[in-house]
Amino acid sequence: MTDTTNISGPGPRAARGGSAARRALRKSGPKASAVRAGMPGGTYRPLSEQDMKRIHHTALDVLEKLGVGEPIPEILEVALPRGCWVNSQGRLCFPRALVEDILAGACRSYTAYGVSPEHDLEIGGDRVNFATAGEAIKVLDFHSGEYRPSTLLDLYDFARLADRLEHVHCFGQTIVATDMPDRLTSDFNVAYACLAGTQKSFGVSIENVEHHARLISFFDAFLGGEGKFVERPFCVIGGCPIVSPLRFGKENAEVMVANARLGLCIDPAIAAQAGATAPAALAGTLVQTVAETLVTLIVGNLITPGLPVSFGIWPFVSDLRTGAFTGGGGEEALLTAAAVQMCRFYDLPSSVGAGMTDAKAIDAQAGYEKGVTVTLAAVAGGNYVSECCGMMASLIGCSVEAMVIDNDMLGNIQRVLKGIDVSDETLSFDEIARAIAGPGHYLGSPKTLELMETEYIYPHIADRDSMNGWQSRGSPDIRQAARVRAQEILSAHYPAYIDPATDAKLRERFPILLKAEDMKAGNGRW
Amino acid sequence: MTDTTNISGPGPRAARGGSAARRALRKSGPKASAVRAGMPGGTYRPLSEQDMKRIHHTALDVLEKLGVGEPIPEILEVALPRGCWVNSQGRLCFPRALVEDILAGACRSYTAYGVSPEHDLEIGGDRVNFATAGEAIKVLDFHSGEYRPSTLLDLYDFARLADRLEHVHCFGQTIVATDMPDRLTSDFNVAYACLAGTQKSFGVSIENVEHHARLISFFDAFLGGEGKFVERPFCVIGGCPIVSPLRFGKENAEVMVANARLGLCIDPAIAAQAGATAPAALAGTLVQTVAETLVTLIVGNLITPGLPVSFGIWPFVSDLRTGAFTGGGGEEALLTAAAVQMCRFYDLPSSVGAGMTDAKAIDAQAGYEKGVTVTLAAVAGGNYVSECCGMMASLIGCSVEAMVIDNDMLGNIQRVLKGIDVSDETLSFDEIARAIAGPGHYLGSPKTLELMETEYIYPHIADRDSMNGWQSRGSPDIRQAARVRAQEILSAHYPAYIDPATDAKLRERFPILLKAEDMKAGNGRW
Repeated sequence: MTDTTNISGPGPRAARGGSAARRALRKSGPKASAVRAGMPGGTYRPLSEQDMKRIHHTALDVLEKLGVGEPIPEILEVALPRGCWVNSQGRLCFPRALVEDILAGACRSYTAYGVSPEHDLEIGGDRVNFATAGEAIKVLDFHSGEYRPSTLLDLYDFARLADRLEHVHCFGQTIVATDMPDRLTSDFNVAYACLAGTQKSFGVSIENVEHHARLISFFDAFLGGEGKFVERPFCVIGGCPIVSPLRFGKENAEVMVANARLGLCIDPAIAAQAGATAPAALAGTLVQTVAETLVTLIVGNLITPGLPVSFGIWPFVSDLRTGAFTGGGGEEALLTAAAVQMCRFYDLPSSVGAGMTDAKAIDAQAGYEKGVTVTLAAVAGGNYVSECCGMMASLIGCSVEAMVIDNDMLGNIQRVLKGIDVSDETLSFDEIARAIAGPGHYLGSPKTLELMETEYIYPHIADRDSMNGWQSRGSPDIRQAARVRAQEILSAHYPAYIDPATDAKLRERFPILLKAEDMKAGNGRW
Repeated sequence: MTDTTNISGPGPRAARGGSAARRALRKSGPKASAVRAGMPGGTYRPLSEQDMKRIHHTALDVLEKLGVGEPIPEILEVALPRGCWVNSQGRLCFPRALVEDILAGACRSYTAYGVSPEHDLEIGGDRVNFATAGEAIKVLDFHSGEYRPSTLLDLYDFARLADRLEHVHCFGQTIVATDMPDRLTSDFNVAYACLAGTQKSFGVSIENVEHHARLISFFDAFLGGEGKFVERPFCVIGGCPIVSPLRFGKENAEVMVANARLGLCIDPAIAAQAGATAPAALAGTLVQTVAETLVTLIVGNLITPGLPVSFGIWPFVSDLRTGAFTGGGGEEALLTAAAVQMCRFYDLPSSVGAGMTDAKAIDAQAGYEKGVTVTLAAVAGGNYVSECCGMMASLIGCSVEAMVIDNDMLGNIQRVLKGIDVSDETLSFDEIARAIAGPGHYLGSPKTLELMETEYIYPHIADRDSMNGWQSRGSPDIRQAARVRAQEILSAHYPAYIDPATDAKLRERFPILLKAEDMKAGNGRW
């Protein structure tokens, strides 16, 4: 397009006048946020009703006729009295009537508590929330620009950063602290790093059920009293209790049982991988992951009827040329959206993964793979769209620059979710009549000024400059702006979310390895 | 995620065995293309039925009560006898009954002819096709990495490149040839460059109606006979006949009339810009652009009932802080998808713009802005999703590297459109049973091998390498792979689409400025 065609009505003078008025208004500060957590999705539906019914019925067949291998005693104990049986291959089979009963009585919506109530999220319905996640083992180092093993300090930094990114609603564990001496120490420290860095809801995946009670006692110590955590559990504990295809993983299954017994939310990530640990046909992968995810719903409800269970259906995709996980392709985008649609079919709270680019560099590929996958998971109506901020390299790495960039992208997607408000006023007949009879444009109109902060959102770092402006700034890539913003936040935002007295108590009772000097400004790291 | 969790079932040995079989199969070459032009959209619907009806009715009110300014005599001549009238402000008003009649009888689907029949596209229904477009005035120079004015030779190169990119189905004019001495010379040369570079359907926007007949005689000369072009018009001629808000632009309106009189397709791009030349309320922008686009449908059908008219509704968005066009935000993505939905509401062939990033650099922003906007236009079911390949900098620039990268993205999006095939076989009950009873995975299964080329698509340049593989290649950004692929194509693909005898005749009759030495390999440009 030529420079002159984009505003065909008014001349430059009119445009300048309107612009001055808008700048003045804008200076008075934002009045209302155009978007918030829980914007509605559900407007994208790749599967037909008939497709969903067939997937559902086949999944029930799988659970009844093929069952799930290696059931643990704690699950057999609650399942067998309800009509389940162990078949000749030692697999636990679930009668379809039981599954249907549980589906009918399952929890439809629950509150995911923030550490502070302002970050509480309602999980269910068509409400879309964005969460980090990923448990990467590497970090794209801010200073060297190279991938290196991720550390506890990285996790603290990611938590502080996510705390300040308004479109990240929940802080799933972005990375593994690979510098911990053992897993129990890691579990305490991961929890500590999250609490120190953010007041948003977060998640910690633990090694085994032995650590479950100990982690809860850590949270109780933070809250200053035994039993306090389960009253307002701000952390989701656990990993994936299913090893695909269709068998229990002992340690995580035990953790799932422990959660259910305490009434704590189960939020698994059932990540069967099409072409490797799930059928290559995408419909078959849906069948298997629906069946596997139903198992967590069943177990949770057998132990505690009505338990909050997030239907954590995370179908993954292989590049069939190599068998490797590939998170950025069209197959993944489609499969994830279809998985969300299955959750909506069941009217269950959902969790899916999206934004899992295969790019290692923060480049156009990273951008479009995240854009396509997160958009579709969101417009499908995923309640927790996880992995969607900061992840790189097929979930092997995480990056602060990527996180800052992705936050702007999530803002765009939330604006999409907000949808188009159609009313007598917004249909704008009178406004159109005024423009035609008057100035021939809408730039300085009171209505335009009024809608500036409610109908439109503005990115923090995305380039909307003129060509000349961009060139005069040295023709930067968005990564440069992301570095500036990340550094601004990370050099300044050292929140005091753990008060000194509590901190001293926690450090006394638990092997906390995050050093106090790394947790305040001027430490030379940023 | 850790390296070990992505394939939880089989061990590395099993994975290697399956991989060898897949590599062997893959060597035998692709069997079937997983995607093609015209994959179905329409599964994303941001507007409710009631929303669409209200937008429709308000648009009819606008046409009846406010009318369209500066009508040209050729349009008055056909409109007034059909019950239209000119109001006291000199604006042409359209009675709603007439508009409804025309909507009822309008062309629902038409063939957009390629220069060769293999590139014919069926435009209408839920079929999604991707087109370049944009008429940028700059090119991001491949060699210098800087933006510079675009030239005729650039257009030829873009045409050759698009000719080889399988997910670009139609070649809209990417750039303006700013090095032409006058517009008539430009019109001939733009047409020549397109014909020389591609056999896909293309578009040329001309300055005024005087050039219309002359351009057609140029095409007739290419085809070797007067009247041949209108039999199989492989080029859409014209610009935007409406100046927003709601008045005719004389030159392009005359071109529209000339097209309609010859039965040639009208394919405008009605680009009213929310907050500048359209209301700031997105619903109001839809009302105005629907009304404006209906005008082209009405005029086309008044002149030639049933004329192929693409409902070219391209609502644009302003960044209200500056009034400047911004093509990459969530507002644009949503508005474009809603515009597509209005076309589906009318069951008319549609054309929209998407992929109009505001980024100047080929970076993560460019990626996600294109990813979000093109995805939603496609899943909404846009018949022509234009601007979606190669455009940069709010349509000011175009880039060969971006075009090659975007082609991979379009492949992903087409895979999304293809959807999930749900059948007894793909539901995979037996396949799951076999995996459980047998190897515990699906890697070497005959079904997996069978589906490799039909259920999955593979990018040309997107990075799916391992971390080590990527690092050993010097940790490249996708732009580096794009440079290699663009150079491979552009240094080799000099098609002989204009045979020498025809070429001589064209050069004799028309002022063709593209030099023969620039149109063959080894010219030192690539």
